[in-house]
Amino acid sequence: MDIPVKKLLFSCDYLEGAHPKIMRRLMETNLWKSPGYGADSFSQEARARIRSACGAPQAEVYFLTGGTQTNAVVIGAMLASYQGVIAAESGHISVHEAGAVEAGGHKVLTVPHTLGKISAGQVRDVLASYWQDETHEHMVMPGMVYLSQPTEYGTLYSLKELQDIGDVCQTYHIPLYVDGARLAYALACPENDVTLKDLARLSDAFYIGGTKCGALFGEALVLPKPRTIPCFFSVMKQSGAVLAKGRMLGIQFLELFTDGLYEHIGENAIRTSGKIKAALREYGYQLYMETPTNQIFCVLEDGQMERLSELVEFSFWEKPDETHTVVRFATSWATSEDDVAQLIGILRGQQP
Amino acid sequence: MDIPVKKLLFSCDYLEGAHPKIMRRLMETNLWKSPGYGADSFSQEARARIRSACGAPQAEVYFLTGGTQTNAVVIGAMLASYQGVIAAESGHISVHEAGAVEAGGHKVLTVPHTLGKISAGQVRDVLASYWQDETHEHMVMPGMVYLSQPTEYGTLYSLKELQDIGDVCQTYHIPLYVDGARLAYALACPENDVTLKDLARLSDAFYIGGTKCGALFGEALVLPKPRTIPCFFSVMKQSGAVLAKGRMLGIQFLELFTDGLYEHIGENAIRTSGKIKAALREYGYQLYMETPTNQIFCVLEDGQMERLSELVEFSFWEKPDETHTVVRFATSWATSEDDVAQLIGILRGQQP
Amino acid sequence: MDIPVKKLLFSCDYLEGAHPKIMRRLMETNLWKSPGYGADSFSQEARARIRSACGAPQAEVYFLTGGTQTNAVVIGAMLASYQGVIAAESGHISVHEAGAVEAGGHKVLTVPHTLGKISAGQVRDVLASYWQDETHEHMVMPGMVYLSQPTEYGTLYSLKELQDIGDVCQTYHIPLYVDGARLAYALACPENDVTLKDLARLSDAFYIGGTKCGALFGEALVLPKPRTIPCFFSVMKQSGAVLAKGRMLGIQFLELFTDGLYEHIGENAIRTSGKIKAALREYGYQLYMETPTNQIFCVLEDGQMERLSELVEFSFWEKPDETHTVVRFATSWATSEDDVAQLIGILRGQQP
Amino acid sequence: MDIPVKKLLFSCDYLEGAHPKIMRRLMETNLWKSPGYGADSFSQEARARIRSACGAPQAEVYFLTGGTQTNAVVIGAMLASYQGVIAAESGHISVHEAGAVEAGGHKVLTVPHTLGKISAGQVRDVLASYWQDETHEHMVMPGMVYLSQPTEYGTLYSLKELQDIGDVCQTYHIPLYVDGARLAYALACPENDVTLKDLARLSDAFYIGGTKCGALFGEALVLPKPRTIPCFFSVMKQSGAVLAKGRMLGIQFLELFTDGLYEHIGENAIRTSGKIKAALREYGYQLYMETPTNQIFCVLEDGQMERLSELVEFSFWEKPDETHTVVRFATSWATSEDDVAQLIGILRGQQP
Repeated sequence: MDIPVKKLLFSCDYLEGAHPKIMRRLMETNLWKSPGYGADSFSQEARARIRSACGAPQAEVYFLTGGTQTNAVVIGAMLASYQGVIAAESGHISVHEAGAVEAGGHKVLTVPHTLGKISAGQVRDVLASYWQDETHEHMVMPGMVYLSQPTEYGTLYSLKELQDIGDVCQTYHIPLYVDGARLAYALACPENDVTLKDLARLSDAFYIGGTKCGALFGEALVLPKPRTIPCFFSVMKQSGAVLAKGRMLGIQFLELFTDGLYEHIGENAIRTSGKIKAALREYGYQLYMETPTNQIFCVLEDGQMERLSELVEFSFWEKPDETHTVVRFATSWATSEDDVAQLIGILRGQQP
Repeated sequence: MDIPVKKLLFSCDYLEGAHPKIMRRLMETNLWKSPGYGADSFSQEARARIRSACGAPQAEVYFLTGGTQTNAVVIGAMLASYQGVIAAESGHISVHEAGAVEAGGHKVLTVPHTLGKISAGQVRDVLASYWQDETHEHMVMPGMVYLSQPTEYGTLYSLKELQDIGDVCQTYHIPLYVDGARLAYALACPENDVTLKDLARLSDAFYIGGTKCGALFGEALVLPKPRTIPCFFSVMKQSGAVLAKGRMLGIQFLELFTDGLYEHIGENAIRTSGKIKAALREYGYQLYMETPTNQIFCVLEDGQMERLSELVEFSFWEKPDETHTVVRFATSWATSEDDVAQLIGILRGQQP
Repeated sequence: MDIPVKKLLFSCDYLEGAHPKIMRRLMETNLWKSPGYGADSFSQEARARIRSACGAPQAEVYFLTGGTQTNAVVIGAMLASYQGVIAAESGHISVHEAGAVEAGGHKVLTVPHTLGKISAGQVRDVLASYWQDETHEHMVMPGMVYLSQPTEYGTLYSLKELQDIGDVCQTYHIPLYVDGARLAYALACPENDVTLKDLARLSDAFYIGGTKCGALFGEALVLPKPRTIPCFFSVMKQSGAVLAKGRMLGIQFLELFTDGLYEHIGENAIRTSGKIKAALREYGYQLYMETPTNQIFCVLEDGQMERLSELVEFSFWEKPDETHTVVRFATSWATSEDDVAQLIGILRGQQP
Repeated sequence: MDIPVKKLLFSCDYLEGAHPKIMRRLMETNLWKSPGYGADSFSQEARARIRSACGAPQAEVYFLTGGTQTNAVVIGAMLASYQGVIAAESGHISVHEAGAVEAGGHKVLTVPHTLGKISAGQVRDVLASYWQDETHEHMVMPGMVYLSQPTEYGTLYSLKELQDIGDVCQTYHIPLYVDGARLAYALACPENDVTLKDLARLSDAFYIGGTKCGALFGEALVLPKPRTIPCFFSVMKQSGAVLAKGRMLGIQFLELFTDGLYEHIGENAIRTSGKIKAALREYGYQLYMETPTNQIFCVLEDGQMERLSELVEFSFWEKPDETHTVVRFATSWATSEDDVAQLIGILRGQQP
């Protein structure tokens, strides 16, 4: 137990603890007393700063402990019982949350994705088909749209794409919800043109990811328009999503929203993933798709994958055919240059 | 934000952060890399130590983030859809979890409490009545028993009482589940004769509370018999109850189960609450009931309550009549002698 | 199979099929073709007549197949996820629906009953306590009131009592829902002063019972104000509560609301139960409570109960002590004078 | 209200009431007294005859009121909370039950269909993929297979196809459930080689459709192996799926299983649909697919569809392109030769 894990790990972006500033503040304030359940002054100040960063002075901000929890609670609270949520087939809620949305009683209405994204046209088609069908009362009403920024494949919605989806949602009077589990990596990405203020303006709910973006854990849900979800505290409590020592979340987001930390915390991940992508291209590896953020998807022949996996840990993603595998390398706010150099050395040594 | 809260606070036992040993270990290991979702070596070792402390080498141990979450997930997983859970009317699941058990589809079958406790006889009566009723198929089947140690009122089940309830459960082939949100305060209490090993022997599931017992957050669910709940990881995931950086929970429980910390961490709370109870008696205050652990319930005339509340923060509990109020003072592992002395001074100054 | 059951049965009020007028109409129309799911002209006309009988020209009327289904679907649709329903401890939803309301995610917030009834004062207390409690966000919000007319014990709310409960509901902006499983027996009762028009004026939803009041099956839900429950057809469909051949329900309620049948169909039950009650008193039996409608509750010494049960079938209700049992005799729209005479003969022969 | 609907209707197979034998028996027995909730002797005898017809002397048989209800209750009862049900994208539970399965907490794991059917290979792939994925604990476990016989498109699984799917289910220890809403039309079809006995041998649960096969309403769920679903009565009751006058269902199925009525009741539908299909081919209409049972899918140019729809009512099915529509004609046990002749006359007059 006393020996740190020393293997070269690029399997995900939540391998480490928290940003040192967060840890320092947790230590400093450890024996201060504060009321529970988010009523503490750290949480209040963190909420104020998030409202300010989002240009949404009326916004309600809630802190939850994880992404699946946030998605399930928000979607469950925003849908009527007879409604479902439109999402990409590859969406996190569609695949990797063990059916949490369905456990809450709602169907995920999936549409095929393109590089992890869905389009305004696809959303419109689902809605138009439903309302044009004479028997739609026998079907699940599409009641909101879920997307993630960045997507499961690390790609980004452009501001134009997001506006178009938002327009369709407005036309059909349904809310747009954005899962920002890795939002810091979008914000730090040169290709990105969607700001926190844009998200607050275009969506009805979104969350600012902490767990994968430098916090020990925690997500900040932003409801730009107040009273979007009535009695949301009770909804959270009923879902086991209220932390007794709410200040734990308040302190972390307070630090993340001090001196612009959140907008910059992803830069290291973008820079280091850029180096790795360049190396992969240089050494003749096949990228599965071009992704601008911190996740790198690479197609490996299975033998080569085996050899690489003895030297470095990455994630299994999917099998495009019998003899190849798509794997994922991820960098984070904490990835060291030293680890990157080691990885590049390995990639060079094992090139196809 | 830079000024610590300095009011005299005795409102609950989760006012502070975590025990210094936990904070130190979190700092030391902060940049170590480890796999997510509880597969890290900290969590593995913590589980091993808990199994050992419980004398239950086959036990499964899971870490969750909070008490309401743990109760809802465990009860939901252990009951069949047509079953409900027997609990005291004053039980946490009956009153203070915003209907989390019902949100999961199950009725809480309440029985009146005596000093926060229910008896084997009451449990037997509920079960016997159900099975003797010819129309019981139209009713909710009592499918498990929930109790907490200590109870909502800080009282303790004796080993004999617990054995008797366990015997009834065995007779009727239903599981016994013990909510140990404040278990450290029971273990540190001289009046207590129920050990971790007893709980592991007599119950089918129980949780060792972290949030209220010195951790930043977190509860350790113990299932003494393996495979009590199939696929429990997926159940947790579906409920939004899996922490991505699972090591956060592992590290905390590892520290709590190093050098017997958990068995002793409540001693300060017991000692300090003893002093406060003695002062209350000496100065003529009326205790609502005698409780051996860290929660003190006191009946105040409303005018006196107003005056006291300007000097010290405590919890509102209930109103026994129009002009009196039951309030709660709570001590914790972190309560300082200085704060206790101040409180006693105030109590002397405001005596009835 | 070819021999009709000939035992003297007074166990409930749904022992027979349907009123002969209903059967005749079902036969006449059997091979007519009509669209499904309640769009048929029988259902349309039945809805129009119910609206008229209720003096509620804007009302929405839906037909469901049974009482538990109706209660669960309506309560689930009218409550927000964080709300529960106030009901008598003896209420059908509290005891005899196998936890259907909880299976839909909602707590039944029980209050003690007096002769099966709850009072406006009790309802006000539950609501006031909730809203006055500082920690109410951790509790289940009382979100509607459920009562039944007649009650589980066959007693009746007076118009004044109903108005008072309705006033409390309006003050707290929560809906009042009335379960009318046996409503015809109330309407036929001389002591009753609550009409269908009163129910439509004072409640937000109520159902007119068919199953226990002369139909083969079926209940007519009345929502006096349109759009009380959005998309209720889909809610019903999702709950498995839409009958494909909806005309089956339409035809039955059309007959029940032709020539005032529903208002009079219970009269036979009231008259026959009156005779039985008179006989019980005359022969020295102890009535458990005075009830004006078609259910008769009688306390029997257990030996006597055994002897009686060999001659006539009644329902077990509850055990007030070790040696006595409360049993129920029920009459219905179909109870014959001959059966009543036989029963009275038996009661005379077995008098205590 | 007194004039029967006289338009030429081929829109579905539940336009009429019930088979005359059923109506006659309901009339005969109308004033007999019998106990409720399925304990009556009609239901007992009906169950015995179904067991006999299925060659499953140990089977449990339950009567429910409709197909969506039966599917939702059975699937909800057979799956663990973390499991989903494999079904065709075109399956009734996937599309036309308003999300009833999801409302019960479970994901429908859809696979593409071929003529409404799924194959053993597809089922195996879903199961193999799940179990091979290292992260499957984060996903919904495929926990049962749903298919319907005939399918939504009126096609039939062959005995071989059904055996193959059953084999895969056995390999993976998951149950196979068959929705027989229109089972009588399969049994009456010359192309069919799957008997009731085969269904009882190969599936873990299936239902014998009444609503669409000559009953007023009702489905008979068969669980060939006893105790497949514990406490199923309470599960039904909790779901609002128990009929108080259970004999209504018992009498209907008793008639359907007297003198082989159920095996033959679909023959009229098969014969009449055969005539219509022949006419469609003769007059140059384009059949959407070849279907052996009582549903006929035809592709119409939209202008022609408009003209036809003024003369006869059929169902909209889907739009394969901008200018064409797939429509459905359905025949039933009650379709008259006269109506068929009229329809053929119209088809001849409007031929493309």
